[in-house]
Amino acid sequence: MLRYLTAGESHGKCLIAVIEGIPAGLKIKEEDINKELERRQKGFGRSQRMQIEHDKIEILSGIRWGKTTGSPICLKIENRDYLNWQKIMSIDEKDKDEKFLLTKPRPGHADLPGILKFRHTDIRDVQERASARETSIRVAVGAICKKFLLEFDIKIYSAVEEIGGVSLKLTEEEIINNYSAIENSCVRTPDKNVEEKMVEIIKRCSEKGDTVGGIFKIVVTGLPPGIGSYIQWDKKLDANIARGILSIQAVKGLEIGRGFELGHLFGSEVHDEIFYDEKNKKYYRKTNNAGGIEGGMTNGENLVIRAVMKPIPTLGQPLKSIDIKTKKQTEANVVRSDVCAVPACAVIAESVVAYSISDAFLEKFAGDSMDETKKRFAEYLEYLENF
Amino acid sequence: MLRYLTAGESHGKCLIAVIEGIPAGLKIKEEDINKELERRQKGFGRSQRMQIEHDKIEILSGIRWGKTTGSPICLKIENRDYLNWQKIMSIDEKDKDEKFLLTKPRPGHADLPGILKFRHTDIRDVQERASARETSIRVAVGAICKKFLLEFDIKIYSAVEEIGGVSLKLTEEEIINNYSAIENSCVRTPDKNVEEKMVEIIKRCSEKGDTVGGIFKIVVTGLPPGIGSYIQWDKKLDANIARGILSIQAVKGLEIGRGFELGHLFGSEVHDEIFYDEKNKKYYRKTNNAGGIEGGMTNGENLVIRAVMKPIPTLGQPLKSIDIKTKKQTEANVVRSDVCAVPACAVIAESVVAYSISDAFLEKFAGDSMDETKKRFAEYLEYLENF
Amino acid sequence: MLRYLTAGESHGKCLIAVIEGIPAGLKIKEEDINKELERRQKGFGRSQRMQIEHDKIEILSGIRWGKTTGSPICLKIENRDYLNWQKIMSIDEKDKDEKFLLTKPRPGHADLPGILKFRHTDIRDVQERASARETSIRVAVGAICKKFLLEFDIKIYSAVEEIGGVSLKLTEEEIINNYSAIENSCVRTPDKNVEEKMVEIIKRCSEKGDTVGGIFKIVVTGLPPGIGSYIQWDKKLDANIARGILSIQAVKGLEIGRGFELGHLFGSEVHDEIFYDEKNKKYYRKTNNAGGIEGGMTNGENLVIRAVMKPIPTLGQPLKSIDIKTKKQTEANVVRSDVCAVPACAVIAESVVAYSISDAFLEKFAGDSMDETKKRFAEYLEYLENF
Amino acid sequence: MLRYLTAGESHGKCLIAVIEGIPAGLKIKEEDINKELERRQKGFGRSQRMQIEHDKIEILSGIRWGKTTGSPICLKIENRDYLNWQKIMSIDEKDKDEKFLLTKPRPGHADLPGILKFRHTDIRDVQERASARETSIRVAVGAICKKFLLEFDIKIYSAVEEIGGVSLKLTEEEIINNYSAIENSCVRTPDKNVEEKMVEIIKRCSEKGDTVGGIFKIVVTGLPPGIGSYIQWDKKLDANIARGILSIQAVKGLEIGRGFELGHLFGSEVHDEIFYDEKNKKYYRKTNNAGGIEGGMTNGENLVIRAVMKPIPTLGQPLKSIDIKTKKQTEANVVRSDVCAVPACAVIAESVVAYSISDAFLEKFAGDSMDETKKRFAEYLEYLENF
Repeated sequence: MLRYLTAGESHGKCLIAVIEGIPAGLKIKEEDINKELERRQKGFGRSQRMQIEHDKIEILSGIRWGKTTGSPICLKIENRDYLNWQKIMSIDEKDKDEKFLLTKPRPGHADLPGILKFRHTDIRDVQERASARETSIRVAVGAICKKFLLEFDIKIYSAVEEIGGVSLKLTEEEIINNYSAIENSCVRTPDKNVEEKMVEIIKRCSEKGDTVGGIFKIVVTGLPPGIGSYIQWDKKLDANIARGILSIQAVKGLEIGRGFELGHLFGSEVHDEIFYDEKNKKYYRKTNNAGGIEGGMTNGENLVIRAVMKPIPTLGQPLKSIDIKTKKQTEANVVRSDVCAVPACAVIAESVVAYSISDAFLEKFAGDSMDETKKRFAEYLEYLENF
Repeated sequence: MLRYLTAGESHGKCLIAVIEGIPAGLKIKEEDINKELERRQKGFGRSQRMQIEHDKIEILSGIRWGKTTGSPICLKIENRDYLNWQKIMSIDEKDKDEKFLLTKPRPGHADLPGILKFRHTDIRDVQERASARETSIRVAVGAICKKFLLEFDIKIYSAVEEIGGVSLKLTEEEIINNYSAIENSCVRTPDKNVEEKMVEIIKRCSEKGDTVGGIFKIVVTGLPPGIGSYIQWDKKLDANIARGILSIQAVKGLEIGRGFELGHLFGSEVHDEIFYDEKNKKYYRKTNNAGGIEGGMTNGENLVIRAVMKPIPTLGQPLKSIDIKTKKQTEANVVRSDVCAVPACAVIAESVVAYSISDAFLEKFAGDSMDETKKRFAEYLEYLENF
Repeated sequence: MLRYLTAGESHGKCLIAVIEGIPAGLKIKEEDINKELERRQKGFGRSQRMQIEHDKIEILSGIRWGKTTGSPICLKIENRDYLNWQKIMSIDEKDKDEKFLLTKPRPGHADLPGILKFRHTDIRDVQERASARETSIRVAVGAICKKFLLEFDIKIYSAVEEIGGVSLKLTEEEIINNYSAIENSCVRTPDKNVEEKMVEIIKRCSEKGDTVGGIFKIVVTGLPPGIGSYIQWDKKLDANIARGILSIQAVKGLEIGRGFELGHLFGSEVHDEIFYDEKNKKYYRKTNNAGGIEGGMTNGENLVIRAVMKPIPTLGQPLKSIDIKTKKQTEANVVRSDVCAVPACAVIAESVVAYSISDAFLEKFAGDSMDETKKRFAEYLEYLENF
Repeated sequence: MLRYLTAGESHGKCLIAVIEGIPAGLKIKEEDINKELERRQKGFGRSQRMQIEHDKIEILSGIRWGKTTGSPICLKIENRDYLNWQKIMSIDEKDKDEKFLLTKPRPGHADLPGILKFRHTDIRDVQERASARETSIRVAVGAICKKFLLEFDIKIYSAVEEIGGVSLKLTEEEIINNYSAIENSCVRTPDKNVEEKMVEIIKRCSEKGDTVGGIFKIVVTGLPPGIGSYIQWDKKLDANIARGILSIQAVKGLEIGRGFELGHLFGSEVHDEIFYDEKNKKYYRKTNNAGGIEGGMTNGENLVIRAVMKPIPTLGQPLKSIDIKTKKQTEANVVRSDVCAVPACAVIAESVVAYSISDAFLEKFAGDSMDETKKRFAEYLEYLENF
């Protein structure tokens, strides 16, 4: 059983995750994780904060002499910006100072419902935890999961398909085959023209104090059939992936495979017929409208997910709000924020998908050591060949 | 803490659910549940099975003299069709008979990945559990949750927006205000013209041995702000609703609020500005693009969800498949099935949403008895007024 | 992941369990379960109810043609006595009748705290669920787990060591070697003299309207080392066994291995030194003071547990109580009950231990099918030999 | 819902816990936690390590300006000794050095089963996590829970009743009334004579390279009835407390109330008759043989738990073992260790009990803020008075 909890605030000392259930013997270096953290910090349209932080992981436990030990792995990312926030974020009652209180909730954020829920008087007590900064530590967790999956040749890709109306749909193959272009693009599109237009729209937003959302796509290759299960509602892989994806700050929708297009297509058009490859002793499909999921399980094809991120709700040109202290109409708090974080969101989504797949993968294969898990996986592949 | 498990096969003896965590003292009658079961069985395009079953609930535990006792509630729906399947579904080894083996997996179903995963030789061992028939007992669970939420004036509506390309988008208000027309429509649309066209397309599918999917919308009214939480990834209400919705057989996508439209809109256009109603001492919004969720919590506006159901993958005119015994190309098994179940899917979605909301609601308010839970809810409403 | 929920009341229609996570392909017959149910119903000192019930299992789902399918298994035991309780236990509000109200809580039972917790006015709403009758369905769950473990040659034994002060301590070997005598004894002791004295004391209790408790021992053989884990507090096998054992109605204490004797022994006396058997390529111990658990894991020796059951708190000669309606001093309700259920409790404990071990076993080996699980187990044994 | 995970190794950088579910608004200072950490480090018979460590908590998240925010609380204890272990515990593969390998498992520890389970070659990979050093961070978690419970006037006491055969049984009242003597005793007994004898035996052990175990008692006062539940096996408070207590390293047994004595007592002797205090409008008992638990719930009396700790299995005069590399008979590794840690174990047990009670308490009362939780608790007390 894989599980993890994160802790930490946006301008607190640090972000922390404890992840438990990764078998012993998986090779992990801090740079494996840092590489992913860096991918998350990129993207045109990010705020100045990205220049302050340069996230670096510190592994606090669970890894020794280059390998996981099977014990809980604790990961830490220091908030460099904390140096500037020590009084404001202090744990000490004596640092309390009314002048720092935030009282103008930002529409679209956790601010207003959060403060009502927890009976706070300072919106900061909400926004510091609700902030998408928390996703940096989830990317670290995901980096370990990606490393784990890679041992079984399972790989996760992402690309951006739309930013602020500038759109280029990409097939699975286009993503995989142009991946270095995507990785090198500041908006995660392989097309230079589209990139230019996306950058253009982000710039315009930035000038107007506005923000912009978009759509991204995740592709996972190398999955054997039978990961996830239909036996109970909460075991379905698509359900758990949806939970992960929607748990990312600002994501408001998700599709598996053809998704919403299925509202106007016929059964005869969309179900992926079954073929058998005699040579490789393998069932296969010529299409992948199901996005790799049938009955809550992987079916051996690529897993394909699309998701939409809303425009970031912290605007330079603030929206109307109410001061919770005076109940008077006002403008929302303005805090330093990104104009567009869709490319980062795609990287974060890779991470949460890596976690959900690893979780379902380990539910099938388990194993206290990589040695066991690998033998079991090999046995399954062999069985599939002989089925 | 609310939790439930279901058990049972499509043509086995019965479907069962155990649900635990509903406070003592909630009034429940079997007819409350039967009413919902009936709603699920309706809809133009259903199979003959609907005429056999006429689902009726039997409450086996947890309710006495008309009220919940706080103990686990056990619900049962008998499969009337079981009478015709006793040998095939027998628990007894002596009834095993090779002639009943199903070996031609249906594309789009759990059939192929399921049989590979569990190492079965008879596809029936998969399809009997993976079948959407299981949703009948989830509707029963949802009926109890809906009854629970109704005590707090929280109501759940659903409507169909698209079937096979015939589409009519509906606002929250249109759904709520035309709800009796929707309830009386065989395709859950309030518009008679649209209904006719949807029926037409289903009929055409039926004639061609084809199937058709669609899109439906869920609206929840009466929710106070602060249900769900941002503090951990797995506590977010939208994430848990997504998990529930995607756990429904054949659902392939979901949106909250404006959903995928947010890929081309600007922050200034979509975030719901905050206003204060002095008279009712209440924060409110003039728009609801967020679909009632900010930061993983309800924000006091209606919860609005859209989801897409793929065309049912059991086709009268079967798709290509492989016989798993011979590995030869063949046609998929043909079993009695619906041509269109989008209206039923909307009702099922109401149920899973009712569960997710009840779960988050009880995480905030808890209570071993309705008396406690109601007092706590009232106290919260009072606090909100005075905030 | 193994999980189960039970539902049902003592005099309601039935008891139900849903158990999920048993791999596909395990052979199960109803008589396998009935045999265990019968063992639970035996024992000198049981009430008349045992003559009414003769518990029989009905498998409602999850097993087909003699084998588990991997889907949730639903088990049902009908309460024959329900026929006499239909009005009293009716789910229908119209059957409510004040004359049936129970208002005199029995000391030692859930009665008083339960009614306060759930805000009931009828103690029956508590006692019907809190009753140890619920353990019959847990024995059914345990019967499946025992069958599962037996496939790996893991066996569970129990014996009674004390009833009402009549005591005979038994070593692991004495229990295993005299097991048919124990199974044939009405008080689960292999010694006829001791049996006679235990029966005597129960008879005397019965005559005086009193009850009596006792101590029993569980031994599990065939466990490989490494089941359970030290990596997190809630993964330790001894902790989870303790949770199971203490969750049995009336159990008030538990020991692993030497248990409370360890309060006066020295480290040099109690730790089981490590030896190596060259021939069988196996680590072993000459003593088993640890009771087979080191660091929250099995260590390859027999698992040995002792537990104490308090005297049943329903007395023929009732204890002092308060009428919750009048607040006047009175005597507790008298209901039909056992005088001594220690032998039954031992059988129940076998079941909960079987569940806890199966859970930890499956956490290590997992497997959607017995085929997989067995191969993995074999590979582990082979690895142990070569370690 | 309360939950927590710990991470960290005995000589790694630090120990970490993430605890989630404590309502917002609870006052916490680091010194509240440090006070408990210090209590754990005390006791006659501890190793030199206690002089190195002087555990100090660092709060990394979840507390701001002196109060919990409702967000996950992250706690850290640095291992000062890490400075001396940086190469040995390094996460870096290049620090790997065969000369540090531990290959002689200590009987009674996780060493042997742990290394077999995880397929390690260095016992250190096991013992670093299995070590009881981990309990320091659990005491920190417990300190927060104790602080939480104190807001409702629920208090937790502990005392030692036996060390190495030197025994003094203590009633609940004796513990509560002599608590400052107990707190000031180096072996947690109020009796100076007994203390002297206990110290004597520990000294003798120390000289002989031996270790010694003992028995301790936990008393919890101020609990209202109805905490915990009978509705499902895993909701019973006694079961969950047993799980917590047995999860403490070296604990091998537990009793609630009269415990194992109940094996020779009669029902008429042990069940706590029910009385009503007209003045305080409160049910009460004149005895507390049940130890405050009936039907898996608190009954309003003090919760009373006894548990036994085995002698620490790391001996100065090492036991026989096998070198896992050579398979030759040898002596177990000798590492710096305590001779007796029973007083510390009692403090740790307070902490795990505080967690289990807080968990069950919050399951009944919940609340996102202390304000809510307190109002709900007050309402319950009022209801109890009027019941």
